[in-house]
Amino acid sequence: MYMTNKLELLANLEAQFEDRFSRSLALREQHGRGESYHSVKSPDAVVFVETTEEVADIVRQCADARMPVIAYGAGTSLEGHLSAVEGGISVDLSRMNAVLRVSPEDLDCTVQAGVTREELNSYLRDLGLFFPIDPGANASIGGMAATRASGTNAVRYGTMRENVLSLTVVLPDGRIIRTAGRARKSSAGYDLTRLFVGSEGTLGIITEVTLRLHGIPETMSAALCSFPDIASAVNTAIVIVQMGIPVARMELMDRGLIEAVNAYSALELPLRDTLAFEFHGSPASVEEQVALVREIATENGADNFEAATSLEERNRLWKARHNALYAVVSQRPGAKGWSSDVCVPVSELGNCILHARELLAGCNVPAAILGHVGDGNYHVVFAVDPDNEQEIEEVAHINKLMVKKAISVNGTCTGEHGIGTGKIAYLREEHGAAVDVMALLKDALDPHGVMNPGKIFLR
Amino acid sequence: MYMTNKLELLANLEAQFEDRFSRSLALREQHGRGESYHSVKSPDAVVFVETTEEVADIVRQCADARMPVIAYGAGTSLEGHLSAVEGGISVDLSRMNAVLRVSPEDLDCTVQAGVTREELNSYLRDLGLFFPIDPGANASIGGMAATRASGTNAVRYGTMRENVLSLTVVLPDGRIIRTAGRARKSSAGYDLTRLFVGSEGTLGIITEVTLRLHGIPETMSAALCSFPDIASAVNTAIVIVQMGIPVARMELMDRGLIEAVNAYSALELPLRDTLAFEFHGSPASVEEQVALVREIATENGADNFEAATSLEERNRLWKARHNALYAVVSQRPGAKGWSSDVCVPVSELGNCILHARELLAGCNVPAAILGHVGDGNYHVVFAVDPDNEQEIEEVAHINKLMVKKAISVNGTCTGEHGIGTGKIAYLREEHGAAVDVMALLKDALDPHGVMNPGKIFLR
Repeated sequence: MYMTNKLELLANLEAQFEDRFSRSLALREQHGRGESYHSVKSPDAVVFVETTEEVADIVRQCADARMPVIAYGAGTSLEGHLSAVEGGISVDLSRMNAVLRVSPEDLDCTVQAGVTREELNSYLRDLGLFFPIDPGANASIGGMAATRASGTNAVRYGTMRENVLSLTVVLPDGRIIRTAGRARKSSAGYDLTRLFVGSEGTLGIITEVTLRLHGIPETMSAALCSFPDIASAVNTAIVIVQMGIPVARMELMDRGLIEAVNAYSALELPLRDTLAFEFHGSPASVEEQVALVREIATENGADNFEAATSLEERNRLWKARHNALYAVVSQRPGAKGWSSDVCVPVSELGNCILHARELLAGCNVPAAILGHVGDGNYHVVFAVDPDNEQEIEEVAHINKLMVKKAISVNGTCTGEHGIGTGKIAYLREEHGAAVDVMALLKDALDPHGVMNPGKIFLR
Repeated sequence: MYMTNKLELLANLEAQFEDRFSRSLALREQHGRGESYHSVKSPDAVVFVETTEEVADIVRQCADARMPVIAYGAGTSLEGHLSAVEGGISVDLSRMNAVLRVSPEDLDCTVQAGVTREELNSYLRDLGLFFPIDPGANASIGGMAATRASGTNAVRYGTMRENVLSLTVVLPDGRIIRTAGRARKSSAGYDLTRLFVGSEGTLGIITEVTLRLHGIPETMSAALCSFPDIASAVNTAIVIVQMGIPVARMELMDRGLIEAVNAYSALELPLRDTLAFEFHGSPASVEEQVALVREIATENGADNFEAATSLEERNRLWKARHNALYAVVSQRPGAKGWSSDVCVPVSELGNCILHARELLAGCNVPAAILGHVGDGNYHVVFAVDPDNEQEIEEVAHINKLMVKKAISVNGTCTGEHGIGTGKIAYLREEHGAAVDVMALLKDALDPHGVMNPGKIFLR
């Protein structure tokens, strides 16, 4: 019965997809893991899909056999999203990597879900356009939509929530829908686009994404600014937000992170608590922004403000910043990265980051603080020994206290990484009875619980 | 049984709410209508509520008696949202008009749903802050959230979709939830905020709204620009959007509208197809924007570009623009306003607006074209004789052709007014099978169909 169905399903999928179907152990393990520090389970098989119709076909078969389906993009999620907690089929979308359409006139495009953010930006560069959302990793656009990702540019350009115009989604029963047209705004019915953005594969599989694009700014300039302590850096950031200065990026890197980044990326940044900025706009506007930011930073005790105007300098700086997690982990052979991720109202940022620093004072695991401080979002990145249970417990405890602190000031347990398996308990703590509404929606759309079970909440 | 329950319910509510409960015909008629041109039905009774708990209590009683519940804010909706198509209780939130909290440091606030946008902006002015979303009418914030409203500033500041951070909602079973905290971004579970924004009271009643605010810009300046024809005006708007010039407002008013507005608001604007602009920013940035826009307009054949820098001039201009619907209607004694509302990708705007103008060429009903053209959103406003069935049919037919045209170019049947009773058929045409997903969500949250029945879709 049950098991027979599943074995039949596996045989059928193998016959149908031939060498695009695999049960190899290495591949299954890779597809269950992501970049997560959580203990994970491998799926029963991996299928490399090439069209939306193939995804729909697989989902229909899996629904019939009550076999879980887990979408896989670039495998860069951090909260155990890919773990096949009840077994299942990993639907690998990485070969769905076509840019289907770009409309420079409308500043939008449609891509298949497997296109990565770097692939998209390479494609767009010659058109004078870019897509700003940049989580550290080179994630897939479908995965970024599914976890409501953001990154360093969100303070200016928003997150996936603001930049997805429409989705093609395969529903848990195999039906295919498009959530919206291409109009910039609409009041036509429920906002299905935003319902699927951030649903982590639990309501359906995103196969195509229509995105807002932006013109490459006429002028871009960066700056690095060192502070005597982290409080001065954070206060500077808060004032900049409150004054509404439209910085494109404003990233906090604590001294420990600078040390790691210098070693990993062969840089010689000053060993201080640091804010890194990027400015976008017309020449006059960028000049104005830089002058204002320099003034605010100086008033808040900055002891160095260094501009990086050349493209090469800027690319090196942001590449180093994006590799922060890898930089911290590389300091300790055999270690795994664990990145906490909370977001608070900007007025609470100073007090919350100092709280995090206090928590780290007594911690034996190498760690650094970084933050998209313009949004109130910050991370502590740990390099954990995966075989040391005591260490894992210690980090889990700090993570928990950070989350509780964030929730206590009306913040969120996750700014951009999602819930996955790792933050299920905190979702309830943050949202209370609203989680029951989410569960009601889940049960309505996926009554058999086949879509990425065990994520966001336990059913 | 059924009817007995409802009669008992009415008696109970009257006993409970005393003079805040009314069955007066005039009040019931007013509460069923809004500013809609649709034929409407009055509710059975009106209750003036003062707290979220009272709303929850009423909803619970109504759910038990299977009595429909219809939220009422300022009564300015346009698509029949308030019509009690199956009878019911109108829950009037206008007395829930307290600003509960403003945080200038975080640029956010929380208000009760009955606060109007003008009340909120009066409150905020002394704090140097403003809330940009401005539908023509002085709508309530709760109603604006419920219809996903926007207005003239959306090209720069977004719509209610982007500016609502969190909602307090009474669910169809009387439970009260808060959809999110105050963090600027979050990846914690399904986006319930965006699910309720635009749900038109069919999934619950919004009683409190947490909003993003913006600092009043250092410099604001307006300009009026006349064109020899509507195509030149639209082309100018398209180039401005494509160049990413951050205009705060860019409004198209055709010659007919200018005539109506001049008469209604005692202005002497040149009788031409016109774009009205507002620019926000630092002095240097505003100057730069004005110069660029002037250049683009001139290249596209503008024959006049007039700046309006004084506060008084600007206020007069925008007040006149906001009264456009009333201005058109006032030209014809006894007429009612009917505003169509579609939104298309900006690249399609020229061709779609010319299509609308062609449709109007053969139309005997006084009409004018206006548009938030930076978003691709435009309206034809008709002054209809409500007793002339042939006229109503004629306007309905033009409305239908405009909607079909918009949908055919991947646009939407409603940019900002919502579906209500008026656009149910078009929702299906636009969204196809996705409407079934919306209906599934509706049935899951409101299994007895008590929340504003007959709106968005027929169940």
